[in-house]
Amino acid sequence: MSTATPALNNVNLSAVAALAAHIQKSPEVANTTWKADVQWTGAFTSEVRVRHFAPIKSDEPLTLGGTDTAPNPVEQLLGALGNCLAVGYAANASSAGIGIRSLHIAIEGNIDLRTFLGLAQGNAGYEAIKVTVKLETDASHDKVEALHRTVVGTSPVGHTLERAVPVTIELWKPAN
Amino acid sequence: MSTATPALNNVNLSAVAALAAHIQKSPEVANTTWKADVQWTGAFTSEVRVRHFAPIKSDEPLTLGGTDTAPNPVEQLLGALGNCLAVGYAANASSAGIGIRSLHIAIEGNIDLRTFLGLAQGNAGYEAIKVTVKLETDASHDKVEALHRTVVGTSPVGHTLERAVPVTIELWKPAN
Repeated sequence: MSTATPALNNVNLSAVAALAAHIQKSPEVANTTWKADVQWTGAFTSEVRVRHFAPIKSDEPLTLGGTDTAPNPVEQLLGALGNCLAVGYAANASSAGIGIRSLHIAIEGNIDLRTFLGLAQGNAGYEAIKVTVKLETDASHDKVEALHRTVVGTSPVGHTLERAVPVTIELWKPAN
Repeated sequence: MSTATPALNNVNLSAVAALAAHIQKSPEVANTTWKADVQWTGAFTSEVRVRHFAPIKSDEPLTLGGTDTAPNPVEQLLGALGNCLAVGYAANASSAGIGIRSLHIAIEGNIDLRTFLGLAQGNAGYEAIKVTVKLETDASHDKVEALHRTVVGTSPVGHTLERAVPVTIELWKPAN
C-alpha cells in the first residue's frame, strides 16, 4: 500500500495493526514459537542460526580463554534487551504520534565469574541489569514518560529477564 | 606457549586456569561488568555494538511490522543461551578430559504476543524455554551426564533466565 507521506519513524504501523486485528479474531495466533540453533565451532566459538539468516558468531575474550573474535553470550543477552526496547519505543512512539529524532540505549550488568569457573556455588548470571535510554524527540516530557512506562511494561526480553523463566535443558538421546 | 599436541577441543584451558588462580588470589577480579550499546536505525531496526566489534543488526519479521533483515531480539536471546551453553560444554568437557566430536544446541520458546501488542496485561516474555543438546563424543554416558549437570548448573545466561533479575530502565535526563 503506497502512502503520500512517509510513515512516522518509518514504522509500518498498518502491519502491526493488522496483526493485532488478526489476533483479536483468532487469539491462538498470538501464541508464537521462536527458535535458534547453535553449532559449536571449536574452542569457545560457536555460531547461531535463526531462520534464513547468515550465521552469527560468538566467542569469549582472551582473559576468559577465548579467541576474542565476536561478542560473548552475556554481551549478546544485553544487546537483545536493547534491541527489544528499541522496537518498543519505535512501535509505541509511532502509535502515540511521537517522532523519534534519535534513540540510543546503553545496557550493562554485573556477573560474579566464580560460579561459572566452579570456584563458588550460586548465581552464575547477572545480579542486576541497568539500562539508560537516550531519546531525542520534540514530544513533551509527559508524553515521553508515558511512552517509557508503556515500553518498559510490555518488553518481551525485559519481562523474560525480570521473571524466573522455566528453562529445560535436555541431552538428546539417540533412538537405538 | 607451544605444545606438541593440540589442546582438547581447541580450548585454551591454561587461560581459564590462570583466570581462576588470579581470582582465588584477588576475588574482586571475579566481579565483572559487561556492556552493550544499541542504536535505533529507523522502523524496527537497530544495531548493537559491543567493544571493538562491528555492529550487529536487529529487525522484526514482516508479520510483526519489521523489514525482516536480521534475527529479532527474542531470537537473539535464545541464541545467547545456546552460545553460553556451548562455552560451558567446551570448557567443562576439556577440564574433564572429554573430547567433543560435535555439539549442536536447539533452543525454542513460546511468547504470547498480546502483551507486547497492548491487547492484554501480563507476561510479554517467554513463558518457558526448551533446549535440546546433541553432543557427539566417545565419553561414557555417565561422564556425559555429569558434564551436562555441571554445564546447566553454571551457565551465566541460563541462570539469568531462570532467575528474576532486577532490571532498571531509566530515561537519560539532560543536565540543563
